[in-house]
Amino acid sequence: MTVRVGVIGTGAIGREHISRVENVISGGRITAVTDVNEQSAQSAVRDFNLNAAIYPDDQALVADGNIDAVFITSWGPAHESSVLLAVEAGKYVFCEKPLATTAEGCLRIIEAEKKHGRRLVQVGFMRRYDEGYAQLKETLDQNEIGNVLMVRAAHRNAAVDESYKTNMAVTETLIHEIDALHWLIHDDYHSVKVDFPRKTKHAHAELQDPQVFTLKTKQGVLINVEVFVNCRYGYDIQCEVIGEEGIARLPEVPSVIVRKQSKASTNILNDWKLRFMDAYNKELQNFFDAIEAYGQPQGPSAWDGYIAAVTADACLKAQETGEEQDVLLGEKPEFYEQKLHV
Amino acid sequence: MTVRVGVIGTGAIGREHISRVENVISGGRITAVTDVNEQSAQSAVRDFNLNAAIYPDDQALVADGNIDAVFITSWGPAHESSVLLAVEAGKYVFCEKPLATTAEGCLRIIEAEKKHGRRLVQVGFMRRYDEGYAQLKETLDQNEIGNVLMVRAAHRNAAVDESYKTNMAVTETLIHEIDALHWLIHDDYHSVKVDFPRKTKHAHAELQDPQVFTLKTKQGVLINVEVFVNCRYGYDIQCEVIGEEGIARLPEVPSVIVRKQSKASTNILNDWKLRFMDAYNKELQNFFDAIEAYGQPQGPSAWDGYIAAVTADACLKAQETGEEQDVLLGEKPEFYEQKLHV
Amino acid sequence: MTVRVGVIGTGAIGREHISRVENVISGGRITAVTDVNEQSAQSAVRDFNLNAAIYPDDQALVADGNIDAVFITSWGPAHESSVLLAVEAGKYVFCEKPLATTAEGCLRIIEAEKKHGRRLVQVGFMRRYDEGYAQLKETLDQNEIGNVLMVRAAHRNAAVDESYKTNMAVTETLIHEIDALHWLIHDDYHSVKVDFPRKTKHAHAELQDPQVFTLKTKQGVLINVEVFVNCRYGYDIQCEVIGEEGIARLPEVPSVIVRKQSKASTNILNDWKLRFMDAYNKELQNFFDAIEAYGQPQGPSAWDGYIAAVTADACLKAQETGEEQDVLLGEKPEFYEQKLHV
Amino acid sequence: MTVRVGVIGTGAIGREHISRVENVISGGRITAVTDVNEQSAQSAVRDFNLNAAIYPDDQALVADGNIDAVFITSWGPAHESSVLLAVEAGKYVFCEKPLATTAEGCLRIIEAEKKHGRRLVQVGFMRRYDEGYAQLKETLDQNEIGNVLMVRAAHRNAAVDESYKTNMAVTETLIHEIDALHWLIHDDYHSVKVDFPRKTKHAHAELQDPQVFTLKTKQGVLINVEVFVNCRYGYDIQCEVIGEEGIARLPEVPSVIVRKQSKASTNILNDWKLRFMDAYNKELQNFFDAIEAYGQPQGPSAWDGYIAAVTADACLKAQETGEEQDVLLGEKPEFYEQKLHV
Ligand SMILES: [Mg+2]
Ligand SMILES: [Mg+2]
Ligand SMILES: [Mg+2]
Ligand SMILES: [Mg+2]
Repeated sequence: MTVRVGVIGTGAIGREHISRVENVISGGRITAVTDVNEQSAQSAVRDFNLNAAIYPDDQALVADGNIDAVFITSWGPAHESSVLLAVEAGKYVFCEKPLATTAEGCLRIIEAEKKHGRRLVQVGFMRRYDEGYAQLKETLDQNEIGNVLMVRAAHRNAAVDESYKTNMAVTETLIHEIDALHWLIHDDYHSVKVDFPRKTKHAHAELQDPQVFTLKTKQGVLINVEVFVNCRYGYDIQCEVIGEEGIARLPEVPSVIVRKQSKASTNILNDWKLRFMDAYNKELQNFFDAIEAYGQPQGPSAWDGYIAAVTADACLKAQETGEEQDVLLGEKPEFYEQKLHV
Repeated sequence: MTVRVGVIGTGAIGREHISRVENVISGGRITAVTDVNEQSAQSAVRDFNLNAAIYPDDQALVADGNIDAVFITSWGPAHESSVLLAVEAGKYVFCEKPLATTAEGCLRIIEAEKKHGRRLVQVGFMRRYDEGYAQLKETLDQNEIGNVLMVRAAHRNAAVDESYKTNMAVTETLIHEIDALHWLIHDDYHSVKVDFPRKTKHAHAELQDPQVFTLKTKQGVLINVEVFVNCRYGYDIQCEVIGEEGIARLPEVPSVIVRKQSKASTNILNDWKLRFMDAYNKELQNFFDAIEAYGQPQGPSAWDGYIAAVTADACLKAQETGEEQDVLLGEKPEFYEQKLHV
Repeated sequence: MTVRVGVIGTGAIGREHISRVENVISGGRITAVTDVNEQSAQSAVRDFNLNAAIYPDDQALVADGNIDAVFITSWGPAHESSVLLAVEAGKYVFCEKPLATTAEGCLRIIEAEKKHGRRLVQVGFMRRYDEGYAQLKETLDQNEIGNVLMVRAAHRNAAVDESYKTNMAVTETLIHEIDALHWLIHDDYHSVKVDFPRKTKHAHAELQDPQVFTLKTKQGVLINVEVFVNCRYGYDIQCEVIGEEGIARLPEVPSVIVRKQSKASTNILNDWKLRFMDAYNKELQNFFDAIEAYGQPQGPSAWDGYIAAVTADACLKAQETGEEQDVLLGEKPEFYEQKLHV
Repeated sequence: MTVRVGVIGTGAIGREHISRVENVISGGRITAVTDVNEQSAQSAVRDFNLNAAIYPDDQALVADGNIDAVFITSWGPAHESSVLLAVEAGKYVFCEKPLATTAEGCLRIIEAEKKHGRRLVQVGFMRRYDEGYAQLKETLDQNEIGNVLMVRAAHRNAAVDESYKTNMAVTETLIHEIDALHWLIHDDYHSVKVDFPRKTKHAHAELQDPQVFTLKTKQGVLINVEVFVNCRYGYDIQCEVIGEEGIARLPEVPSVIVRKQSKASTNILNDWKLRFMDAYNKELQNFFDAIEAYGQPQGPSAWDGYIAAVTADACLKAQETGEEQDVLLGEKPEFYEQKLHV
């Protein structure tokens, strides 16, 4: 079976996913596109030589009987309504983060999905598909290091532009750890606080950089995440999990080792896209494969999207108040308790 | 464009490539199959749910107007005649090693391809598509370490079965270094000798293991390759290039680092297939992409297949005689001098 | 010149220093000993074949005209009075931590030393003499990574015995980071708080383990130190400094790398003494060398002992209250502003 | 007991050992010196503030009843006669390499020592005292990797001056591996050949650089040693031992890891003295300690000096002839079969 995909939003990320489906992975093809900028939709069809209908809006697109799934790659505030339209039409949904801009929006999607009776929605948290995270999770799930007590993580970018403000450390950066870490350790967040270390001179006036988030989970795990987006030296993702019997650490990105001029050195990536390129490919491949194998996606769910929204809200409030904030999650519906395959 | 592929040989490796084309990569589909065992061909069609014709033999298959390319994944002695048939029919060819079992066979293919006027044939040396080798080559091509003086490599398997004899250290194992190393350093082999160190007790009577091959190139580069196929500890590929200004080394396979019981450890693969899984995917993806972009493959050529055959012959003779042997390569045809994109 | 040393306290650590002076390093010899247990003093003389006087107490020992320096290796509560006696007698002092059990005690020693007019006292914080810390300090002092913004450290022991209680995470363990980190980054502590993650099952009832201390410095540097004394896997000291231009990390303890049974592994020490063996040797060698070269010690000063005492007090209060505590340091006397050579 | 040492040869290496004994290690002191250049001997006494007699020659020095041991740190051709004088006088001898410039000279020393009835002589092969080699040896001796099959080593210097000729790759450089490797694997050399790879442009006309030595042992172990003395990037010693059950590798020199400007890097030493500084200290400390504990040295023996001489001769002949050469060792005297403690 080939999954026929309608793409809502043909900007940069939309085009990347189109290219991925058409040129890199198996199991899907793009049969419809729409964008608020119609020229953008036309360019996508032309540039990727798609055999795809162009629709004026998401409503028209989801109504197309010739699509099985939609990719929602528009800007964040538009996600919720597109997801709801697609779910109501019974289409599979791959939605880039955020699932919705509010926790309430996520809950509305959850309700719609539950009404449908089985999962339709996958949120674009690609880290779970990264080979390194997969190994780390396997290590934990095999109980190699015993119960988890602490996590130390860092999310560093070489530099960000002027548009990146203090709150985006949460919504654009930490958000990936928020999803990945609770998944990794099978736990839920209980509270969060933030510390602002001495600010780097490379951050502009409206950006506090670095920031350190301390999250506590319901099981008492203490999670320390450094977000440092003008670290200068490269794009670098670190994660170390401390357990009762040992410690496990994310592998470094493989690099040729060069000995030259009194140094032994490996390369550090600068471009974050390269860091998770394989993960991006695998998340969409898995989306298609799971639809074929199980009739529903197996990746990050609408509930995971909700967790991200609630936790990000608490993090933002912690930034504003300087105080520890509770992460007030609702009860997890039975509907989402099924064993996930990823 | 989708490359329509006929598969000659639906054994283990043929099935893997079928699965790859159908389930993992983009740009091709399987439209015909044949195998000396007809049931095997039928199983492949059924198991992978192919919409493909089943032919009684390679001759019938290459005559199918509904295929653009053939994959030759039959047993080695059958390769040459299938390649010649396909080339004469003007089909693209992806042929697993060996291209032919003799240097003369390779030359016959080269003549046929030259007659055709442009490249049709790619040989299945997948290491060139490995991310680590690609980085190493980039390092050398960027002149990061100056002129190459020496190469130290090792090709180790955890264990082999009883059917693996001393000569197979050349034809099944070293053959990958033979292709990868001349490509890596842009040089041709001049001579080879072999040393037999103390034999491991884990090798059976008819297998000398380990073996160490010393190759010299026309530029004087000294290449030392250890082949050790009962090393017990895992599948491990090492390659270090020593240049005038520095040294570059293949990255290790990325692995979670675990600290436990007084050890910090990373995992070593046991299964060679996992080591080069991405490379296998990329070699076929590149085969399709190059056909689409350039109208001819860009990977290892029939000439590379010939180099492998001539060099392997010299290595076998060095094993038998214990003496240094010349690697007697003919003049490289202008036809193969074009800039390769990989 | 040979520094003649009187040892006050011939327990385990006293004996180690005696052995070090007599059998490993240059520049000193033991000429007097005392211990509250006279038999212990006699055993030391006999076991190390010392040509040394045995005194009934510290007062008698410091009065001996045949000693230039005293090592104070008695139990902590006795340190202050012995140091004061020695300083008043104009002897050099090498005092194991703590310099005194209270900040006030440290200040009394500082006053006595100032009265003497030049430094006499060195406190036994050996980490500064560790080759890895020395390299890290050199990296920072050479401005390789720009201004320091954060420090992440961990101090892990395989296991501790029943006598080790929650507060000892400060007085026995963190105390080493307290000294090493302010020295490393040329900064003073401003406040401290402590988090108690999920407790390991391997800690007994009266020990909270692990603990995470967050220190802020006057410059705003955020320091995160994990203390985990039942980590099971070994003795492990980690330290990473995050600067504006890059990051520097303490080297691992060198270990043979073994590839075996599908793992590549290095050894982690279990015994903390082995970790800093060279540093212990170097701190005493430097004590002797500085006395010979400069007429005063160059290592950790009485002021550093005071910083440790004040900071440890704040850490203990943070443990008890669960609140952030200020580190209330007095003004650093001009007397201690001289350039230290270590 | 303090070992009283007479130093024959107060050039660079003699002065370093004097400084080591006086300022760094325990258990010895310099009580006599001599040098062919009397001013050099006088300078040594003055510069290191020695309480030592100055003698006109080695004969006079060994006759001094006030010395227990001699350090022979003169130029190589003078070693043999000084060693013989010292042995005949019943003094302990620490002799820098070479023990003698010929195998016959070494045998004469062996005969003299045997006549004395117990070991007096230690040769200055310091690698055995390096912490990394000690760990590697421990790994092998504990049978961690089973029987040894191969060794791969490299000895690289950043650069050498014009006086360094092709043969010195053996006498000044490989000589250290010659001693260390047979000790490491408890085996004797059987033959050697040499390959000359493409020559680096950084080597002058009279120096073939790099060179690769292939040694075979009596047990059939194949040893490959690269000697590359203008490698540019630093001083680097590599050693990997391949066994039947696994592989063990010498640790890297510990270095701070810096992440900066898209690289993660560690430092490589340039100065060979720094690489083995601790080993130099330990070899002399062990020389003194063994004399005290056992009445005889435990380090590299006169027999080891003889092995080095015979093997170096075969290597030089292999360089000249281009042919494989036998290493013709005599029978090891029972006298040297005692268990060595290092
Ligand atoms: Mg995503
Ligand atoms: Mg292949
Ligand atoms: Mg100490
Ligand atoms: Mg030496």
